[in-house]
Amino acid sequence: MIFSSKLIEDAVQEFAKLPGIGKKTALRMVLHLLKAHVNESDSFAEALTRMRHGVKFCKHCHNVSDTEVCMVCVNPARNKRQICVVENIRDVIAIESTQQFNGLYHVLGGILSPLDGIGPEQLNLANITERIVANDTEELIMALSPTIEGDTTVYYISKIVSETQVRITTIARGIAFGGELEYTDEMTLARSIAKRLPVENYVSVKGN
Amino acid sequence: MIFSSKLIEDAVQEFAKLPGIGKKTALRMVLHLLKAHVNESDSFAEALTRMRHGVKFCKHCHNVSDTEVCMVCVNPARNKRQICVVENIRDVIAIESTQQFNGLYHVLGGILSPLDGIGPEQLNLANITERIVANDTEELIMALSPTIEGDTTVYYISKIVSETQVRITTIARGIAFGGELEYTDEMTLARSIAKRLPVENYVSVKGN
Repeated sequence: MIFSSKLIEDAVQEFAKLPGIGKKTALRMVLHLLKAHVNESDSFAEALTRMRHGVKFCKHCHNVSDTEVCMVCVNPARNKRQICVVENIRDVIAIESTQQFNGLYHVLGGILSPLDGIGPEQLNLANITERIVANDTEELIMALSPTIEGDTTVYYISKIVSETQVRITTIARGIAFGGELEYTDEMTLARSIAKRLPVENYVSVKGN
Repeated sequence: MIFSSKLIEDAVQEFAKLPGIGKKTALRMVLHLLKAHVNESDSFAEALTRMRHGVKFCKHCHNVSDTEVCMVCVNPARNKRQICVVENIRDVIAIESTQQFNGLYHVLGGILSPLDGIGPEQLNLANITERIVANDTEELIMALSPTIEGDTTVYYISKIVSETQVRITTIARGIAFGGELEYTDEMTLARSIAKRLPVENYVSVKGN
């Protein structure tokens, strides 16, 4: 692409660095901002700078936060005796959006993956035992992806917290609601047969 | 979506205003910038602000430019006797990228469309006759979309420049290279039969 303006070219190149954005889409965005009122592009740039410089990570759960301790950790209405362990911030947003979980989180910031060079010291695990003791946590809910890396991480965490006697659970795995049996992969299907639920239980979960 | 940080939420909302970007994609971009080095997000925001405040429109051809007169208009190697009329900046980039056109441009900034309230006074037409006279232009090449609005615009411009005696041409319309005859729409096919070319001509165009 040949641009007649270096300023436009620079802006397009910056946009094209974003995940999933090619040069054409980047150009479309830049021209959109060029057409929009100057205030709009200024508030865009400001929101970005403010976010990047202002966002902190909660010292307890490592979730993103505008303050030292995040909104979830300071909320007195949350059940402090349940901690949900997730891989990243996106998972927190996904679970919060269900409005079904009222406990605390623990954001690992990754998942054990020796092939990618991610070992236990890269994850936010230093304070997990301390948190369990401090909150007198009853249950540690592992909400990690059902992959080999996820299972390894679950196993590793269960080892390091074993002396706290906390109960460790994982989120249910099975066929998704609205999913078709015949299109489900073998692994999921096999697992959901092995871990079948009594029907009363199923009904109560549905009606919950 | 429920965010635990207002700063993140603001940034996501700004991204989601861009064309073709939903909330999920916006979040992905924000988290990408949050993970990247702070310099990267700063240079992103700066490039954007610099672009929005610094970009000018060439006083001759109305193309985007970093200076009063754009790179194309000041370039002495360009053929000043050909002016290519296009709808917008994106078309200039597309034509420049072919590296097949060596004349000047005239960016209309839109196309006549009474339904959308775009009349001649919304287009950059005030100086077109003046430019043709000043450059002693021989040919005005209409590179507009082959739509009713495009054709109307071509007709309108040909009227207002009629006293200059400039030769008016339009870019060739027909079946795209690599296109399949059977999948071509009827209008294009009908037009490309009506405007068929002698074979020598076709060969010379291909070999050009």
